[in-house]
Amino acid sequence: MYRPEIKVLDCTIRDGGLINNHQFDMDFVKKVYRASAGAGIDYFEIGYKNSKDLFSTEEYGLWKFCDDHIIEEVIQGIESKTKISCMVDIGRVNMDDIKNADESPVAMIRVACYVKDIDKAIAMANGFYEKGYETCINIMAISRDQGPELDEAFEQIERESHVIAVYLVDSFGYLYQETVSALTRRAKAIIKTKEVGVHFHNNQQLAFGNTIEAIIDGANYLDATIYGIGRAAGNCNLELLLGFLKNPKYDIRPLLDFISTDMLKLREEIEWGYILPYALAGMMNEHPRLAMALRNSDGKENYREFYETMQSTSTDCL
Amino acid sequence: MYRPEIKVLDCTIRDGGLINNHQFDMDFVKKVYRASAGAGIDYFEIGYKNSKDLFSTEEYGLWKFCDDHIIEEVIQGIESKTKISCMVDIGRVNMDDIKNADESPVAMIRVACYVKDIDKAIAMANGFYEKGYETCINIMAISRDQGPELDEAFEQIERESHVIAVYLVDSFGYLYQETVSALTRRAKAIIKTKEVGVHFHNNQQLAFGNTIEAIIDGANYLDATIYGIGRAAGNCNLELLLGFLKNPKYDIRPLLDFISTDMLKLREEIEWGYILPYALAGMMNEHPRLAMALRNSDGKENYREFYETMQSTSTDCL
Repeated sequence: MYRPEIKVLDCTIRDGGLINNHQFDMDFVKKVYRASAGAGIDYFEIGYKNSKDLFSTEEYGLWKFCDDHIIEEVIQGIESKTKISCMVDIGRVNMDDIKNADESPVAMIRVACYVKDIDKAIAMANGFYEKGYETCINIMAISRDQGPELDEAFEQIERESHVIAVYLVDSFGYLYQETVSALTRRAKAIIKTKEVGVHFHNNQQLAFGNTIEAIIDGANYLDATIYGIGRAAGNCNLELLLGFLKNPKYDIRPLLDFISTDMLKLREEIEWGYILPYALAGMMNEHPRLAMALRNSDGKENYREFYETMQSTSTDCL
Repeated sequence: MYRPEIKVLDCTIRDGGLINNHQFDMDFVKKVYRASAGAGIDYFEIGYKNSKDLFSTEEYGLWKFCDDHIIEEVIQGIESKTKISCMVDIGRVNMDDIKNADESPVAMIRVACYVKDIDKAIAMANGFYEKGYETCINIMAISRDQGPELDEAFEQIERESHVIAVYLVDSFGYLYQETVSALTRRAKAIIKTKEVGVHFHNNQQLAFGNTIEAIIDGANYLDATIYGIGRAAGNCNLELLLGFLKNPKYDIRPLLDFISTDMLKLREEIEWGYILPYALAGMMNEHPRLAMALRNSDGKENYREFYETMQSTSTDCL
């Protein structure tokens, strides 16, 4: 019943790090890796490879930079087939800092970009490919970029890159499954020699449902996080995804243990999940930044006022 | 863009009452009704019409019995087009207690039943129809009853009843959208003179996504609750559903107000939503009762043990 081509990527630490400036301690990250590896997850995305010239190591934790020796500390002593992935943003990485893949614990590097930056993303991804890494391109905020330039981006990636997968990223948690289906089919129609992947945000409680939709339409690379952790509303829940996939190589039990012992506690310290301002921002196809600001203010539960402000802001742009 | 045939039913008080033995106080219920009516919701399901010979009025609150004069107290002074609905279970109602519709504030009565009880349900629904009510039949636990007897039930309802809609109820929160789509199409293929409705539970965060799926396949009667309240994992979130439906008669703002002022507080007092044992019970197509018992025990966060026990119980039934 299962599709062997499907690969699951756990981005608990990478996307979760967007909530707390990547300040997870080493012990916690080891535990997450152990749970994920024990669950048979294919890829474990541990953070960003950002240049220390651009970001302060005092303000941001280890997983904003992901030095190879730090990653080695995480994985040492844990036997597993789970591969390590890092994400990079356009213009935030010093290519000279990146060793060749055969000297690094990192197997895959994913380049995140908007449609308008696709040329830069392809150049970067090809640079990593030449260093021996598996590569992906993650097209962010795809709900805002559904015009013909998206097809051009798909065509260009297909023609000019060596990526394993092109990810459709619903950064704003806006998409309903009809659009997911249309976008996945559109990508599959152009991208013939690479896989299509998906990364959904859970603003409207649709991250899991949309992932299922994309699977039906042929997406094989799937992002998820333990207990749905991630910026704002968070992501597709890894434990739900494993419940859906029938591949016997996956085992939900290490995730259940880890949620019981660590994630419930973490959820009391930092916030993600179904929270009305994030749901409303998702409905309106808006970046969650205003909702995040609201959640850090005294008026954090003033949902109606937030909704009306967002609505009049949208109307203003006429 | 909207489909005018779509009717939304708010079962906040009826399904929410399953968590607290229907012990909402009058003031709270009035506020919910005011919010729902203000939002332009089509039907407001206020509780069950159970016989007081069968259930104790000390153990259960007003909304287990829904006396007409109590309902009148709720709605008085609130101008609205929202119709009142009540639910009944097979064998739990004394038909002689039910006045004719023209003497009652209730417009619709929904009969909940399993497939095996479809004859009784049709007889009851026809009894209410003769008293002048709009009627529906809600087929519960449909994920367990997908054999040919389901088609027979559809055929019989189509032929023998006067219901407005036949509801497909995913009592266990088990269904993924492929099955939702198949079931909705199957119902639509047989039920030509009545509408198809859906009521989903949110164990796997799929209640809203599954509702969208059913809409795509032609379901026009949709159940939801404010902030997703409902037994165990709860239901499709009404505020999300209004965000999806484009009919200008609906207004999300009264719901946002009510969530800010009342639902957040209530959620601290009673529990519903994304809670692992409910998710696991959903994945396994099991009634949430064992998960509910776990949540009332000291081991409430022992997810792995719960999972393993449920698995071995399922295996035992071989």
